[in-house]
Amino acid sequence: MAETIGFVGLGDLGAPVAGNLLDAGYGLRVWNRTVSKADALVARGAERAATPADAASPGGIVVSLLWDDASVESVVASDGFLDQLAPGGVHISMSTITPEASKRLAALHAARGSTFVEAPIFGRPEAAAARQLWIPFAGPAAAKERVRPLLDAMGAQGVFDFGEEIGAATMVKLVGNFMIIAMARSIGEGVRAVAANGFDPKATIEMLTQTLFDAPIFRSYGRALATGAAAPVQSAIPEKDLGLFQRTAALAGAPTPISGLLLKIVRAP
Amino acid sequence: MAETIGFVGLGDLGAPVAGNLLDAGYGLRVWNRTVSKADALVARGAERAATPADAASPGGIVVSLLWDDASVESVVASDGFLDQLAPGGVHISMSTITPEASKRLAALHAARGSTFVEAPIFGRPEAAAARQLWIPFAGPAAAKERVRPLLDAMGAQGVFDFGEEIGAATMVKLVGNFMIIAMARSIGEGVRAVAANGFDPKATIEMLTQTLFDAPIFRSYGRALATGAAAPVQSAIPEKDLGLFQRTAALAGAPTPISGLLLKIVRAP
Repeated sequence: MAETIGFVGLGDLGAPVAGNLLDAGYGLRVWNRTVSKADALVARGAERAATPADAASPGGIVVSLLWDDASVESVVASDGFLDQLAPGGVHISMSTITPEASKRLAALHAARGSTFVEAPIFGRPEAAAARQLWIPFAGPAAAKERVRPLLDAMGAQGVFDFGEEIGAATMVKLVGNFMIIAMARSIGEGVRAVAANGFDPKATIEMLTQTLFDAPIFRSYGRALATGAAAPVQSAIPEKDLGLFQRTAALAGAPTPISGLLLKIVRAP
Repeated sequence: MAETIGFVGLGDLGAPVAGNLLDAGYGLRVWNRTVSKADALVARGAERAATPADAASPGGIVVSLLWDDASVESVVASDGFLDQLAPGGVHISMSTITPEASKRLAALHAARGSTFVEAPIFGRPEAAAARQLWIPFAGPAAAKERVRPLLDAMGAQGVFDFGEEIGAATMVKLVGNFMIIAMARSIGEGVRAVAANGFDPKATIEMLTQTLFDAPIFRSYGRALATGAAAPVQSAIPEKDLGLFQRTAALAGAPTPISGLLLKIVRAP
């Protein structure tokens, strides 16, 4: 059996990603705030960790896939986590957080003798199960080289190296999510105008997604919106991620009119 | 030589599209408000029409590729145009106009014994030259069948039939242009946030356009925005087309928050 990996955060995305590691033959020590979410993985052979620190091991690898800046920072600050990972451990951070939080976390790890790398995930839970995740990747070269095979094992169909500077991969994830939301909401506005005028939204989306907008993201959102077969997923993620993008852009003085409007739209009842 | 086609409107897009007809062996009678814009085509063998009516011929085919509702309606209302086209002529309207204008124009033609079909063009002038235009197509079946070969000759790489109801093809064009502008402006907002935070916009765009947004429209706009090599084209088209989309959506009571914001953005100095 290959190395045992710590895995913190078994939500909708974390659970299938961790499951992929088991399938690839890795051992797992898993922790989740809601304990029962680990049950299915434990039944498949994962060990249950009592705390985040208990999922880490000296010189080992721990993965986290959590909600936001605060949840990742709380795990890293939790009793014994950084002590348990050092010396020489690597923390693969896969959550969608801000570049500034990522930089703070990297500094905390470096000061305590371990390494923080960022590998946020583009892909919904179905894409994790289908091993079709896209992952931007940043951090110190040696740590990245060590953990790179794990990204494939977790279901990456492609990994994009953004160099050593922490924050770069996280930034791409925020921009990508902003663009996905902008696309989805623009398609929605277009589809509503077509339908209100008595024309066929389905034919409209079929043409646009076979021509100018011939990309998977448009086909899936567009068809769902045009047929009304599936409403856009009701989720707190768009509001959270637009907020992270806005905060990051605003900190650097970049204007955010479109993401600002989208944030109002997704917050509307 | 094949049939002689009337062609009204030799702007940035009209000129290469008309040139494609000449290349395909059709005769041309061309008219443009600014007379000199016909010179290059006349030098290549096109006849010069003195008026829009003079470009039309009884039972023949005339193409128009103009700026907006008013310019197409003014050509159709011009002295002798509808008289000259009847009986049995077909007007292929390729301008980006509103569905309501398209319906009014179709009724005018029908009342006078000719047929109006709509075939607005997705594609920039370079795409016309490269014969890579996408064309949504609507109107009475017999007229569409008659003029269909002309669309290929004008440079279509794909024609999408939206049925007999006039307005359907024009609606698709308005939605498509709205979505293109939403994309371009969202990419711009993302790229500015990346750059302001000191990260590399080019690497960001490379990843996103190779994965989620793997479509030609993103690659061209994204690379131009990320490298700063080419600013977005300064043009009055986005403002005009967003206005047409908004008016069309509002007439039917559909909400337009995103296109409304984009209209403010493109109008800002």
